[in-house]
Amino acid sequence: MTRIRLGMVGGGNDAFIGGVHRIASRIDDRYELVAGALSSTPEKAQASGEALGLPRIYDDFKQMAIREARLKNGIEAVSIVTPNHVHYAAAREFLKRGIHVICDKPLTSNLSDAKKLVKAAENSGALFILTHNYTGYPMVRQAREMVANGAIGKIRVVQVEYPQDWLTVEQDFKQAEWRTDPERSGAGGSTGDIGTHAHNLARFITGLEVESLAADLDAFVPGRRVDDNGHVMLRFEGGAKGMLWCSQVAPGNENALRIRVYGETGGLEWAQEDPNYLWHTPLDEPKRLITRNGAGAGDAAARMSRIPPGHPEGYLEGFANIYSEAAEAIEAHRDGRPVDAEVLFPTVHDGLRGVEFVDACVRSSARNAAWVNLRG
Amino acid sequence: MTRIRLGMVGGGNDAFIGGVHRIASRIDDRYELVAGALSSTPEKAQASGEALGLPRIYDDFKQMAIREARLKNGIEAVSIVTPNHVHYAAAREFLKRGIHVICDKPLTSNLSDAKKLVKAAENSGALFILTHNYTGYPMVRQAREMVANGAIGKIRVVQVEYPQDWLTVEQDFKQAEWRTDPERSGAGGSTGDIGTHAHNLARFITGLEVESLAADLDAFVPGRRVDDNGHVMLRFEGGAKGMLWCSQVAPGNENALRIRVYGETGGLEWAQEDPNYLWHTPLDEPKRLITRNGAGAGDAAARMSRIPPGHPEGYLEGFANIYSEAAEAIEAHRDGRPVDAEVLFPTVHDGLRGVEFVDACVRSSARNAAWVNLRG
Amino acid sequence: MTRIRLGMVGGGNDAFIGGVHRIASRIDDRYELVAGALSSTPEKAQASGEALGLPRIYDDFKQMAIREARLKNGIEAVSIVTPNHVHYAAAREFLKRGIHVICDKPLTSNLSDAKKLVKAAENSGALFILTHNYTGYPMVRQAREMVANGAIGKIRVVQVEYPQDWLTVEQDFKQAEWRTDPERSGAGGSTGDIGTHAHNLARFITGLEVESLAADLDAFVPGRRVDDNGHVMLRFEGGAKGMLWCSQVAPGNENALRIRVYGETGGLEWAQEDPNYLWHTPLDEPKRLITRNGAGAGDAAARMSRIPPGHPEGYLEGFANIYSEAAEAIEAHRDGRPVDAEVLFPTVHDGLRGVEFVDACVRSSARNAAWVNLRG
Amino acid sequence: MTRIRLGMVGGGNDAFIGGVHRIASRIDDRYELVAGALSSTPEKAQASGEALGLPRIYDDFKQMAIREARLKNGIEAVSIVTPNHVHYAAAREFLKRGIHVICDKPLTSNLSDAKKLVKAAENSGALFILTHNYTGYPMVRQAREMVANGAIGKIRVVQVEYPQDWLTVEQDFKQAEWRTDPERSGAGGSTGDIGTHAHNLARFITGLEVESLAADLDAFVPGRRVDDNGHVMLRFEGGAKGMLWCSQVAPGNENALRIRVYGETGGLEWAQEDPNYLWHTPLDEPKRLITRNGAGAGDAAARMSRIPPGHPEGYLEGFANIYSEAAEAIEAHRDGRPVDAEVLFPTVHDGLRGVEFVDACVRSSARNAAWVNLRG
Repeated sequence: MTRIRLGMVGGGNDAFIGGVHRIASRIDDRYELVAGALSSTPEKAQASGEALGLPRIYDDFKQMAIREARLKNGIEAVSIVTPNHVHYAAAREFLKRGIHVICDKPLTSNLSDAKKLVKAAENSGALFILTHNYTGYPMVRQAREMVANGAIGKIRVVQVEYPQDWLTVEQDFKQAEWRTDPERSGAGGSTGDIGTHAHNLARFITGLEVESLAADLDAFVPGRRVDDNGHVMLRFEGGAKGMLWCSQVAPGNENALRIRVYGETGGLEWAQEDPNYLWHTPLDEPKRLITRNGAGAGDAAARMSRIPPGHPEGYLEGFANIYSEAAEAIEAHRDGRPVDAEVLFPTVHDGLRGVEFVDACVRSSARNAAWVNLRG
Repeated sequence: MTRIRLGMVGGGNDAFIGGVHRIASRIDDRYELVAGALSSTPEKAQASGEALGLPRIYDDFKQMAIREARLKNGIEAVSIVTPNHVHYAAAREFLKRGIHVICDKPLTSNLSDAKKLVKAAENSGALFILTHNYTGYPMVRQAREMVANGAIGKIRVVQVEYPQDWLTVEQDFKQAEWRTDPERSGAGGSTGDIGTHAHNLARFITGLEVESLAADLDAFVPGRRVDDNGHVMLRFEGGAKGMLWCSQVAPGNENALRIRVYGETGGLEWAQEDPNYLWHTPLDEPKRLITRNGAGAGDAAARMSRIPPGHPEGYLEGFANIYSEAAEAIEAHRDGRPVDAEVLFPTVHDGLRGVEFVDACVRSSARNAAWVNLRG
Repeated sequence: MTRIRLGMVGGGNDAFIGGVHRIASRIDDRYELVAGALSSTPEKAQASGEALGLPRIYDDFKQMAIREARLKNGIEAVSIVTPNHVHYAAAREFLKRGIHVICDKPLTSNLSDAKKLVKAAENSGALFILTHNYTGYPMVRQAREMVANGAIGKIRVVQVEYPQDWLTVEQDFKQAEWRTDPERSGAGGSTGDIGTHAHNLARFITGLEVESLAADLDAFVPGRRVDDNGHVMLRFEGGAKGMLWCSQVAPGNENALRIRVYGETGGLEWAQEDPNYLWHTPLDEPKRLITRNGAGAGDAAARMSRIPPGHPEGYLEGFANIYSEAAEAIEAHRDGRPVDAEVLFPTVHDGLRGVEFVDACVRSSARNAAWVNLRG
Repeated sequence: MTRIRLGMVGGGNDAFIGGVHRIASRIDDRYELVAGALSSTPEKAQASGEALGLPRIYDDFKQMAIREARLKNGIEAVSIVTPNHVHYAAAREFLKRGIHVICDKPLTSNLSDAKKLVKAAENSGALFILTHNYTGYPMVRQAREMVANGAIGKIRVVQVEYPQDWLTVEQDFKQAEWRTDPERSGAGGSTGDIGTHAHNLARFITGLEVESLAADLDAFVPGRRVDDNGHVMLRFEGGAKGMLWCSQVAPGNENALRIRVYGETGGLEWAQEDPNYLWHTPLDEPKRLITRNGAGAGDAAARMSRIPPGHPEGYLEGFANIYSEAAEAIEAHRDGRPVDAEVLFPTVHDGLRGVEFVDACVRSSARNAAWVNLRG
């Protein structure tokens, strides 16, 4: 089996998520990173590329797209791990040259770009994979499978939250800096950076779309220009109701994404910080602890697991699962065959939904938390 | 020390909360139950009174109030543990005769009664204690004390929730039956029965009043006439924001009242089902587990604790703490001295706040979750 | 129903366990404390009795036994809550006068006294109840019932531990002082004070007797005259094996009694500090969380529960369950009828087993942890 | 930076641990797997090598050692992931040709081989790294660092356990089969397979050697020829005492390695299944939860972490840390410079200690759990 030739845009020396993408691409050994435009600053792009020993280093993504597309063994896919406002422009260049795009979330920094990127992806023969990585966790797959199989009945209530504490006070390091700059992150702060993960996770597990929402957003840290706390009430298609809380100012919460789904005949609970466990309560029966690869876990989770129960897999493995699902699709594309039905990854359309979510939150909050429709 | 002579209204044979009040009144040995009108059905009142070996058994509360007030050693206090719609009428009879009232929550089944009851209490020389029992837990006192002492700084975010699962399907036993009948429980279902606890707990710990709220209530079980799930966004005085979730249809949640409070310099987390623990995260320090009577617990918690750390106290002890605080106040009243400053119990005014909360939730939800003011 | 007239020996003002016994006796309202010899110091006995408002106060237990036995409405039962070395002498006086004895553990401070006390109890018409209170927890009853019903198959492994940290450094307050004095506590320190609880709990849940043990005991705190840490390997009848760890010098453990039992077809796990939960893993199925009064809990636990699931009961309620079981037996005795089969409480014979356990630990440790037989 | 050229012995298609080693070697991108003798069956070796796309595939490890040693760009290191009884013979061939060995645990299947392997390693210029992978977890490093820094004072008690449940009934798949065959696994079953991990972890964190032990081993599953449950009492140098429990027949335990260390001034607790947390209790202070890369974590843990707190790392990352430490040493060796002082990995001497531990357990158990010395 030949590894997929991969390029990367963004992810230079002091970035966080670029390194994550690189490890994720290596874990299952289906990619080979061979080219990069790792920074918008040419010297940093060069230095970062050399530090990684990249065969081909570019000054900017457009140059990279043009040249790689012409190479006989140019990259087949590119990972885009820049700040949000660059996603659209970068992705467009690769998509129009038939190079698959694996893009970090949120899809774009504004709704207009998101819609254009959907078009660009639809007009391209290439694949678009959005790394809503939390959908790669085995027990998230397990939850989705159980919901689909009716294990908890018709869904009534969805409680999803994503509190963090790293922006409780003003921070000036790089990760914090662009994420709190509306020019680069988009109009949503916590809503865009983590609220979109929570929103996507709820959609992924329940299979339900949010029809409307009412949001009360705050920027608690003095001088902050984007929200750092969001309280959102959700109404799903079919009548389910939900709450979504995202926060970057909740001391004691490191990365506490958590979802609870309650239906007519049972409940499911999952927490990202303890990702190998899924709690399932069938109505009127004791709560059960389903573990990754353990008793009670089904096929959807087993596909995403590498090692036996009790040997914890974590964030990087969940992220790697998105890369492996992408590899499944890319290899199928290479071979001209359809992708297996069980292969799942977030698409450009999921990305659009996420940007619509942020946009709706911001608009709702500006109108005193009035309800904003998300569908049509 | 002479035990306080106590009467009881409601709490007959098949009631739940009456038995709880009786145990709570016994644990610290400061009360003696000597009279009762335990049911609105005279035969049941009689039988229930006999089963408890009560010295004086009455057919109805009014008769009891009149006669006990005339006795030389009549009751000094009465516990009212009827369905909500009876609270006002019963309390009034005792208050106007100078008999202290210990009343279950919510204060009344409607706002009009609540306001009249406040008047009745204000016009009475007697005390009024509302058994928002969760304020009696030692670690809730600890949390309140820490907030007051500035341990987490100015409060920004309050997440409080109270999910249960016992009404996930329709139930016809007595406890369920009156709680889902708006004539007896009031217009709020889950909001009244448990939402008021959550609301009061948030007020108690933070010392902040809710200024306005937006509520989206549902009755998920077919045919149910009151809400069984409530999603509420809260705005507190001073700018803090919050979410409150109450539900009786969340399988896997037995009695999962939980509160999390985040301030500028730290966070606090407490869960009723594991009540001997309080989690405290000072900003940029490791999370700490403060235990009842253990290292790090202060005076406010110690006052409410009977036994060493590691020897769990539970719901009944927390409830008994309200009775013991009431006893402190009643004994001070008896002796004509002021109550010690550290004695704390929910009052008729807290009760009014709770009924206002339910009323506001119902009104907000009827107006598509519009914001409703709670203050003046 | 007439309350059982109860006396108390020991449990004066600064004692811990006396207060626990008094609350425990009150919770279910089946006892009335009417007499006491609460201290070996007459003035303290008098002051402590007055503080409790006891009708009859005695200077010493012998005087109390003699006089109460002569009264028409003298005590029917006595709680003995003195330091261990007094248990035998006190119990004997009441037993020989037909007064039921409820005695704190361990049974006695030495094996000779224990054997004499067994005789005294056997020769008496009165009942003897030993307050190994942890057997009163509902989920401990649940575990015992499940083992008896074969829920985990033939038992192979029993891991029981009881670490505490309150004696990590030398302490000079009363509770610590007599417990580390071999004259009063007996030759075992942690083994006697808490090891006996662990040993009894293992026997209670599994229904198996320990046949032999090998113990390695230490007194880590300089100058301490009894063990403060015990490591014990256990061999049970029928081939099961076990480990028992008791410690008073394990920082971070408040009262962390915990037992895990593994059989051929499943496992059970219970921890005293979170007593409302029992973990059950049927072989090759997900772990289940059985809660007090919740789904999956059976009759044995329900008998011992007062309030719904999610409303935690604690140490005092578990202790009260022993008092209520004793009340069942005392009332049956009063009425001349047999005790119901489901009534369970530790007896003088369990007490003897406990003292034999301590004695065997001390002897084994003195012989370099050689195996010591406990049966015949 | 040039990747280290790596070979592998064992780890064919249906093996578990071979795949783990391969992922571990890839995560930090410091190795390139270029050769393998993946099975003792030549056809399987060939097929497995092809499945991995290995450049050079060998029928057996000796052939591989000889040929690779002669190649200009032959392997610099080899991972040995065969059943235990092959470790010695395979390692010897590479060591004597100056090829670094990364070997799975336990070191060998018997003490004689272990001693010979120590000699072979000492006589070789090459490095020997034993993959006691649990020492690679960041919070294990944190614990070791804290102990060394005196955070809990002089150690008194060490409780270490490693229960599993996968051999509760007889299994016939490959992983189970060789592990229960004394010819291939060695005389110890659970003691060798997992007890050695527990023993090594205790040594690693505490810095203390076990001086003597008393072991009671059982083979509970009918027909099993090696122990599946081991109860061991430990005496450490300097006077600390410990218990070690390993079991493969404890339903509900997937891979529940856990260690608790108690000293004169504090306690530490860590559990492999939740590896991102370390509990620290300073005496008379609240318990603290130290998280990987979170507040309170020090340099030793930070070196081993890739991503921010709250983003869980797991078993594979811990394993990868051993590979990265080995890479540090191999690169230093390549460059002729000393290895940095903070680089830590288990050596052949740790491996010998492990085999001595198994041997001592087996001998002790055969002599009715008599004490067996482990030092000189």
